[in-house]
Amino acid sequence: MDWRTQVRRPTLVVHPARVRKNIRRMLNKAEESGVLLRPHFKTHQSGEVGQWFKEGGIHSITVSSVSMALYFAARGWRDITIAFPVNLREMDDINDLARRISLNLLLISGHEAERLSRELVHPAGIWIKTDVGYGRTGIPWENQDEICKLAGLIRDLPHLEFRGLLTHAGQTYHMHDRKERAELFGRIRVGLNSLKDAVLKAGLETCLLSVGDTPGTTAAADFRGLDEVRPGNFVYFDAQQLHLGSCSEEDIAASVACPVVAVHRERNEIVLYGGAVHLSAQAELHPGHPGIKMFGYVVDSHEDGWGRIDPDCYIRSVSQEHGVARVSPGFLDRVKVGDLLCVIPVHSCLAVDLLDTAVTTDSQLFALDFS
Amino acid sequence: MDWRTQVRRPTLVVHPARVRKNIRRMLNKAEESGVLLRPHFKTHQSGEVGQWFKEGGIHSITVSSVSMALYFAARGWRDITIAFPVNLREMDDINDLARRISLNLLLISGHEAERLSRELVHPAGIWIKTDVGYGRTGIPWENQDEICKLAGLIRDLPHLEFRGLLTHAGQTYHMHDRKERAELFGRIRVGLNSLKDAVLKAGLETCLLSVGDTPGTTAAADFRGLDEVRPGNFVYFDAQQLHLGSCSEEDIAASVACPVVAVHRERNEIVLYGGAVHLSAQAELHPGHPGIKMFGYVVDSHEDGWGRIDPDCYIRSVSQEHGVARVSPGFLDRVKVGDLLCVIPVHSCLAVDLLDTAVTTDSQLFALDFS
Repeated sequence: MDWRTQVRRPTLVVHPARVRKNIRRMLNKAEESGVLLRPHFKTHQSGEVGQWFKEGGIHSITVSSVSMALYFAARGWRDITIAFPVNLREMDDINDLARRISLNLLLISGHEAERLSRELVHPAGIWIKTDVGYGRTGIPWENQDEICKLAGLIRDLPHLEFRGLLTHAGQTYHMHDRKERAELFGRIRVGLNSLKDAVLKAGLETCLLSVGDTPGTTAAADFRGLDEVRPGNFVYFDAQQLHLGSCSEEDIAASVACPVVAVHRERNEIVLYGGAVHLSAQAELHPGHPGIKMFGYVVDSHEDGWGRIDPDCYIRSVSQEHGVARVSPGFLDRVKVGDLLCVIPVHSCLAVDLLDTAVTTDSQLFALDFS
Repeated sequence: MDWRTQVRRPTLVVHPARVRKNIRRMLNKAEESGVLLRPHFKTHQSGEVGQWFKEGGIHSITVSSVSMALYFAARGWRDITIAFPVNLREMDDINDLARRISLNLLLISGHEAERLSRELVHPAGIWIKTDVGYGRTGIPWENQDEICKLAGLIRDLPHLEFRGLLTHAGQTYHMHDRKERAELFGRIRVGLNSLKDAVLKAGLETCLLSVGDTPGTTAAADFRGLDEVRPGNFVYFDAQQLHLGSCSEEDIAASVACPVVAVHRERNEIVLYGGAVHLSAQAELHPGHPGIKMFGYVVDSHEDGWGRIDPDCYIRSVSQEHGVARVSPGFLDRVKVGDLLCVIPVHSCLAVDLLDTAVTTDSQLFALDFS
């Protein structure tokens, strides 16, 4: 059956062979370095896609919220890190999770460590969120004494089990040179290992090192010297990762199928049912058209997936439900109202979060029931 | 009960008294002009808030998708316009709606009119989507002959009942001078009436005029010379509408309650559990800080709502679940991890679509079960 016959509304299209290849590639790299791959499930947010990871040999995962941890715990996952500063307003759910699974949480300060220790009923693994220069959150890695002191406090507090240092080098999303990202990855590895030495010298018995982010882990030659890696986006990739050089076009494993609802031949534009509530409002500067923002590439839909990217066919603006696509005259000639086109989104994690249904290119429908 | 005790995760906070006042103000303006208010429900997407409109005397509504029409039809609404070019891939649902309610659809071309006529089993009202300069979709209003020809075709085709001309002047979102928006509203009124004369002259018996958009309808002194208005955002307003001068701060009737998960005193920043999957990735240029983007204002939460906007307290960046707020030193001194702050979002429609739970300032919880 042609997957397109099932699509009435904006729908995530998933390419299972590419997903499995992306998982296998990252897993090989981790295994060659003797490092645990603990993939971030915030990208796909799906029980079904989680199953493909499990079949690939993955048993430890990362999520970005307590709600998402509950979702995956209910689907049999028993080793989950919530890679987000602990939200003390969700202690009931955190205790429920800590009772049932091996749960890992993030801390940044001693005050919250003490509160968490008092309010936890069951033990949880604790990582210190370490800021390696992104400037979002975490203890800046220059503050070695603060990190060592917090590690000691965590070790000494009831219910808290010190795991190590965890970081997300999100600045890689602004580094378009793959070689520079690989060099940054190397510097972070060296810096974290020197921090680890300080933590061990301060009397801690162990201090694992965990790093995340797809632009960094795809650019790095290997993961040696670390204990785990937590990329997420690599399962699908997207236009942003393509522009960063984290993937090739053939690695992109998800697109958004959008019905054509208007064709404006006089201005080479197509209006899609697919707007900010399907693709998100996140834009990228178009790499081929200086100063122009784009909200995704528009490609043909095929029975076995979608067509090649033509940089001249892209979403130029989104409103709530509309996506206005500027396309080449040749593309325009092929399109009529009622057709289905695919959009390679700027940021697949956000599009997935917005959509409620997915279809695989071999026509399996599944609900995106978390997002 | 303090509404805040119920909030664990990012949650929409709705101020019912302000909502009712916003509805009443727009309804008065419509009634004084003898014009139908057909509010756009894409902003609140809620059965409960819809009920407040019903209590205010509203019986005709606008939605932006077939799915949203099904949602409100299931909640007793019997006169619904889907203000989006008709999506021919959803004919089964469209026929189901046309059978049960008074359904109005939008058309742009004769080809789609013929297809729709063939595939409809029950009659539907048809509006010609007319582009008054926004350039998103619709027949440009200069093309008078094309519009008259399509009107005649619609009249003659089975199942199609010609209603009139419908437009959304979205360019008002880029016009920061309220007087300019009022003038544009006046020009659109004159232009549409001249188009209507042409349509009547071409032999149509009737041609209603319907206009939308909150920045225009709030700026216009009255709606005389039109048949219906379809604003949506005015029910809640948001930071964008405040910047446009469509509302005062006291009119803003919705915010997003976000738990504080980290406080970075060294850089006057707070990290909120509230990111792109709660507030959306839509940014505005900060009116008080040239060149700086903002994703919402951060204000205190109060037992009876939220505090005043301080322009120096705003979300400077969002990632999937994190919102990083830059705040004043005085604000920072009051805040600790575990507290609840409110965010006045840039675009309330998109935040509502992303959130799944709302709480009123008098502590009534309701599910945002459509969005």
